[in-house]
Amino acid sequence: MAGSPFDTRVAAIDEEVRALLSHGEPSLQPFYGMMLYHLGLDAERPRGGKRLRPLLCALTFEALGQEEARVLPAAAAIELLHNFTLIHDDIEDQDPRRHHRPTVWSVWGEAQAINAGDGMYALSRLAVQRLRERGFPAERILDLLALLDQTCVRVCEGQFLDISFETRTDVTAERYRAMASRKTGALFAAAAEGAAVLAADDAAVRGRLRAFGMEFGEAFQAHDDVMGIWGSADRTGKVEMNDLVKRKKTLPVVLAFERASPKVRAQLDELFGPPAPLPQANVDRIRAILDETGVRDGIERDIEAHRERALGLLHAAAGAREATDLLERLVRAATGAPAEASAAA
Amino acid sequence: MAGSPFDTRVAAIDEEVRALLSHGEPSLQPFYGMMLYHLGLDAERPRGGKRLRPLLCALTFEALGQEEARVLPAAAAIELLHNFTLIHDDIEDQDPRRHHRPTVWSVWGEAQAINAGDGMYALSRLAVQRLRERGFPAERILDLLALLDQTCVRVCEGQFLDISFETRTDVTAERYRAMASRKTGALFAAAAEGAAVLAADDAAVRGRLRAFGMEFGEAFQAHDDVMGIWGSADRTGKVEMNDLVKRKKTLPVVLAFERASPKVRAQLDELFGPPAPLPQANVDRIRAILDETGVRDGIERDIEAHRERALGLLHAAAGAREATDLLERLVRAATGAPAEASAAA
Repeated sequence: MAGSPFDTRVAAIDEEVRALLSHGEPSLQPFYGMMLYHLGLDAERPRGGKRLRPLLCALTFEALGQEEARVLPAAAAIELLHNFTLIHDDIEDQDPRRHHRPTVWSVWGEAQAINAGDGMYALSRLAVQRLRERGFPAERILDLLALLDQTCVRVCEGQFLDISFETRTDVTAERYRAMASRKTGALFAAAAEGAAVLAADDAAVRGRLRAFGMEFGEAFQAHDDVMGIWGSADRTGKVEMNDLVKRKKTLPVVLAFERASPKVRAQLDELFGPPAPLPQANVDRIRAILDETGVRDGIERDIEAHRERALGLLHAAAGAREATDLLERLVRAATGAPAEASAAA
Repeated sequence: MAGSPFDTRVAAIDEEVRALLSHGEPSLQPFYGMMLYHLGLDAERPRGGKRLRPLLCALTFEALGQEEARVLPAAAAIELLHNFTLIHDDIEDQDPRRHHRPTVWSVWGEAQAINAGDGMYALSRLAVQRLRERGFPAERILDLLALLDQTCVRVCEGQFLDISFETRTDVTAERYRAMASRKTGALFAAAAEGAAVLAADDAAVRGRLRAFGMEFGEAFQAHDDVMGIWGSADRTGKVEMNDLVKRKKTLPVVLAFERASPKVRAQLDELFGPPAPLPQANVDRIRAILDETGVRDGIERDIEAHRERALGLLHAAAGAREATDLLERLVRAATGAPAEASAAA
């Protein structure tokens, strides 16, 4: 997401987040330090994360003709909410690295990492309180909080299903999509719908932008799944452990299991047999089987369909030209659309 | 907390909690099932937990002349908030049992337990939303949410300090109290202050009831620390692992370290040397040293002072007789006051 229109907004979001994580008491500095580290906001080190969800919120608010500065507390809340789930996900998945750096739990231990995530969750709620100083009516702020909390329940439900899948052998593409729409789609939907809640008291706009966010999220997740298997290390930042090494049964794998002959399915079962990290030879053979079943083409078509629906909904709901154009660029870049991917990468 | 005036209120609180944890979708039943299990609300099994904090909230609201039914969503929110921290604490401390049952993480694994705690946290916020149907103004509900979220940040700060203490040798009684006032005191204070936020737009009442909750919390925590070392298994339900077995350096231990001669301090260091669970011989010798230093008497006097200040603040702020009397009983019973302990145990 380079390029100055995104950069200035990311800087404003990060400024809002930093303000929430600044605390005077010396004995508590390391507590907030863990959060700043996770967010890549410690000192001068390179930033981790693309701030995709808060950008989605801020730009949607602008696309509705509103001033970006007023919505920053909501954008910060969404980024903190997302990142608290990442701190916990990294423990739950035992992932040692994220964005080329050791994860919080692998530096400070699981106990401190669980607790730092909990603290970040509470701070995401205090972020929303800052909307009161920006002149939003209390009823709207409560509506936004209800949306965020319902979303968080959905995300946790999705994560429950995802963890359950590890010990299940009957994960269908339908079940996988039900999981992903909760775990990823719900927060994208909330980022766009949340902007609508604050900007306009219009149920139709709200519904359209929720659908926009949901379609965007589904395209993003499917693209992320594709990149997790076929993406180069450079683009995903996941050089150490791609999804196959981690034994993650993402959409391409689930589809391959569904479509494979009994013989090939037995091969896949065997190749996924060892504990993570899977040996490179297994990873290579699984990828070869995925290529043979041709699942990737179908997923790429789905991504395109979700993306086009997302953009159609966006243009039907939004008015302000510059922000709408930026949102379109964001959607295209984050879902791997060929023409724009290199420009905004 | 037997005796019917408490029982009927606990039943009403549990009813409100159950309503929040009831979900139709079969694939998600086990997710909510973990939460119901932790709360002792699964099927007909005996309840775990005394519902002390939600009772404090509900009775304080009544003591201000209000109708209990209206405040139940706030009481449920406080109970869910407290219990989400317990689910995570049990993982962080690697405690295998609570209330005579295996802990959530030891039944379903750490990943699911972290996530179930996160879900319960989000549900505690949705509980507060239910106050909107009870006719409270949006501004007051937002004030309550701000209070709960600030409290949750304080609780996490306290937990950060508590975990840090495990690897520190310089924990003073002052540092210990700063930790405990965050980890325990803050939520007691919020339970009472939250009732005031909803019942009255009066800063003085709010401040007095916050101070009441804080004093109550400090007395409770100190009493809990005493029981964790000298209490019989029957009373605390912690037969498997008392605090010394777990190597927990609670207030009595911290005070003994401060007061002991260099020679005795070296003995204590050695006795606390092995990893948890400490051998029974070490536990017995540590307890003998604690008895010799006489720390317990001083703590008991502190508990009494906190309790008396709490009750003074309560009577200065509250009006309704029955609820105020019940609160006094609750405070006395939960802090081990001799006269009432057996009656309300």
